[in-house]
Amino acid sequence: MTKIPHRLYLTEDQMPKQWFNLRAVMKEQPDPMLHPATLQPMTERDLYPIFCEELARQELDETHAYIDIPEEIQEIYKMYRPSPLIRAYALEKALGTPAKIYYKFEGNNTSGSHKLNSAVAQAYYAKQQGLSGVTTETGAGQWGTALSEACSYFDLTCDVFMVKCSYEQKPFRKAVMRVFDGSITPSPSTTTEVGRKILAEHPDTTGSLGCAISEAVEAAVKSNGSKRYVLGSVLNQVLLHQSIIGLESKIAMEQLNEYPDIVIGCAGGGSNLGGLIAPFMADKITGKSNPRIIAVEPASCPSLTRGKYAYDFCDTGKVTPMARMYTLGCGFIPSANHAGGLRYHGMSPILSKLYHDGYMEAVSYEQTKVFDAAVLFAKRETILPAPESAHAIRCAIDEALKCKESGEAKTILFGLTGTGYFDMVAYENYLNGNMNDYIPTDADLQVGFNSLPDIPQNKNI
Amino acid sequence: MTKIPHRLYLTEDQMPKQWFNLRAVMKEQPDPMLHPATLQPMTERDLYPIFCEELARQELDETHAYIDIPEEIQEIYKMYRPSPLIRAYALEKALGTPAKIYYKFEGNNTSGSHKLNSAVAQAYYAKQQGLSGVTTETGAGQWGTALSEACSYFDLTCDVFMVKCSYEQKPFRKAVMRVFDGSITPSPSTTTEVGRKILAEHPDTTGSLGCAISEAVEAAVKSNGSKRYVLGSVLNQVLLHQSIIGLESKIAMEQLNEYPDIVIGCAGGGSNLGGLIAPFMADKITGKSNPRIIAVEPASCPSLTRGKYAYDFCDTGKVTPMARMYTLGCGFIPSANHAGGLRYHGMSPILSKLYHDGYMEAVSYEQTKVFDAAVLFAKRETILPAPESAHAIRCAIDEALKCKESGEAKTILFGLTGTGYFDMVAYENYLNGNMNDYIPTDADLQVGFNSLPDIPQNKNI
Repeated sequence: MTKIPHRLYLTEDQMPKQWFNLRAVMKEQPDPMLHPATLQPMTERDLYPIFCEELARQELDETHAYIDIPEEIQEIYKMYRPSPLIRAYALEKALGTPAKIYYKFEGNNTSGSHKLNSAVAQAYYAKQQGLSGVTTETGAGQWGTALSEACSYFDLTCDVFMVKCSYEQKPFRKAVMRVFDGSITPSPSTTTEVGRKILAEHPDTTGSLGCAISEAVEAAVKSNGSKRYVLGSVLNQVLLHQSIIGLESKIAMEQLNEYPDIVIGCAGGGSNLGGLIAPFMADKITGKSNPRIIAVEPASCPSLTRGKYAYDFCDTGKVTPMARMYTLGCGFIPSANHAGGLRYHGMSPILSKLYHDGYMEAVSYEQTKVFDAAVLFAKRETILPAPESAHAIRCAIDEALKCKESGEAKTILFGLTGTGYFDMVAYENYLNGNMNDYIPTDADLQVGFNSLPDIPQNKNI
Repeated sequence: MTKIPHRLYLTEDQMPKQWFNLRAVMKEQPDPMLHPATLQPMTERDLYPIFCEELARQELDETHAYIDIPEEIQEIYKMYRPSPLIRAYALEKALGTPAKIYYKFEGNNTSGSHKLNSAVAQAYYAKQQGLSGVTTETGAGQWGTALSEACSYFDLTCDVFMVKCSYEQKPFRKAVMRVFDGSITPSPSTTTEVGRKILAEHPDTTGSLGCAISEAVEAAVKSNGSKRYVLGSVLNQVLLHQSIIGLESKIAMEQLNEYPDIVIGCAGGGSNLGGLIAPFMADKITGKSNPRIIAVEPASCPSLTRGKYAYDFCDTGKVTPMARMYTLGCGFIPSANHAGGLRYHGMSPILSKLYHDGYMEAVSYEQTKVFDAAVLFAKRETILPAPESAHAIRCAIDEALKCKESGEAKTILFGLTGTGYFDMVAYENYLNGNMNDYIPTDADLQVGFNSLPDIPQNKNI
């Protein structure tokens, strides 16, 4: 038998030419998005003021399993993809595990994460529609960077509302976005009505993703039709674009004659997890195979493991449609000491439904344990992971250690979503012993749950 | 004809198993390193107190063209190599040039540059010799990061003397080294005799590479034999290890049925340039082909274009052997406003000899022109380049624009040595219009030349 290589790159010819739409094989669909005023399901037309038309179509498409990737997007994918499927030989050796650990590494592009896969698609459709630009929010900055890159490529403007505390803590993220002509506003700001309202109520707030989404949506809606809002996670369309991760992984594993027993991904809004697991989850739903699929989230922002499956707003300002998802409440703001990203209050409706229906497991970890894993991984595999990605590493290590105990040589696949170059303040705190863990009490969580919309659909949660 | 792919990765089987030693095909050898006390050529044994024995052997080897890469090093190379050979379709289109532009991208590893290729080798030989660790200097931090990574992998200690101004300006570089257990001391420091001496003479100095080298050498020599000094550039052994860049490039181009008309690399101490050009320069020396080979350096540190070809110390404290090279004088310190790396006062003796003998051209650029090229490249090719690498980009763009004028479809290959994530202060200054150019006057350079050693060998320069 030929030895399995450390890194497997598909050739350009082997790269997927279609995205995969998991909804088309789901036995039951996620509950529909609701119009916040009428509480009726959003139609494609309802979405046009917010999203590009093609993206609105993709958002609601429950029937087409495969959707062609436009050639121009394929060309850009070829500029930074395929991403490698890597066999973690050195990590396996360090752990002394019989498990085979693979990871799909999405960090080898300048945005530093998988976010570029959807940014390119969304910028492309905005250009096709003749728009002048897009608006968005960013927290840690990965999405804002990816979108700035994509918009720069298509000569679109890119207005990024960046969560204020990140804006102040991560000046270099801001600088990278500026290289790509991104225009960055700390959020909440006085440039939007909703921003001014939030500032009037909470003058000292350091912002949240939910606030920044509200501002970005308002900026798009008030652009006289010249701009649309784009989002880097949560949405069905984003999971569709990110399916490239899972599709490439599956093709690469097939070339190695491998199939994962366990698929692991970190979960904030669900973009990486939904993309990575897509084809494997399809196999599971259709009975072709039965891999364990594990979502990993921070103990300080535990939407799947401790949230409610309820209708909620996607933003803090309550200007977006409502989605049924696992949520901590749109008013939930993670503890300021939380350093590891994945801070969103909700979770992709697709993943929420699959989790609710028992197709997926979820675990949560405290951040010091996550950074333990990150540093071990960096030293053995020579890649400095993003803290977000390190959640998946932590879980993969723990599963590999269980294999060591049981003697089982399971095949583990996890998603390494990105690199940690812009997270060095968090790493320094960890190395200096200044990182604390925080697990919200039930009472803490109740504050967030109190912000859930009081609508009939939520009566029995 | 099949379209040339955007990115070509060799398979593991196609990766080189030997380094290439350019000296073995040179018609005339570089002048030998001299012992600073006796002015006699250094013997292998003379080098043992400073370098590992195998590395001392490699340093002096003028006869073996191919040197086996030990299997353990090959295994580590496979963890982050092969690096892609990329066709710059988008840049070509933006320039409207008939030229075909290729670049070899060495930045996709956590150290962020090609430096890891030699760091891995030097750490390996230190481990083989049973040492407890190594000492080194770092300026911008690429080499210190790479060496920390490599030492962490082999469980060696890594003492890094970091030029004080970089230490203060780049806290995140320091943090990355700490993840890999690197121990970092700002230089000049009070931990060495030479450091204390320099501080007594220049209490306000912000340090230089030359000072940091002096301190690192002293720390190794005074370790009771438990440590050795390692260097990331200039040395023959480093160029040997970096030949992996050129060898992979040549194999990949052969697969595409291509051969470069022009090979371009940035040049500080010469590690990347020497590695990239090695097999192409061999073809040129032996008459198999005749590519133009261009070294690109900053106008503010112009060792090839305005330096003297003379014997000089490799460090400011004058504790190292002397090498004959193009040099600005070991007392030369580049202007503080210079942001683009490549700040070393000298140049690899191998490259110096080849340049002196007419095998190579050299050009210099002011830094604003370099950052113009960096930003254009980032926007079109979606990779944020290190400022060092952007020197090569600038030259490649200018050569491609010449092709546009002449209508010639030349094939250009350049080395993209690394990424710019840790250089965002410089990018911000550029974007804010706060970056100035500086070209030293002849009188400025004379100050450096005055520091050249007053020895018989230098009488006629």
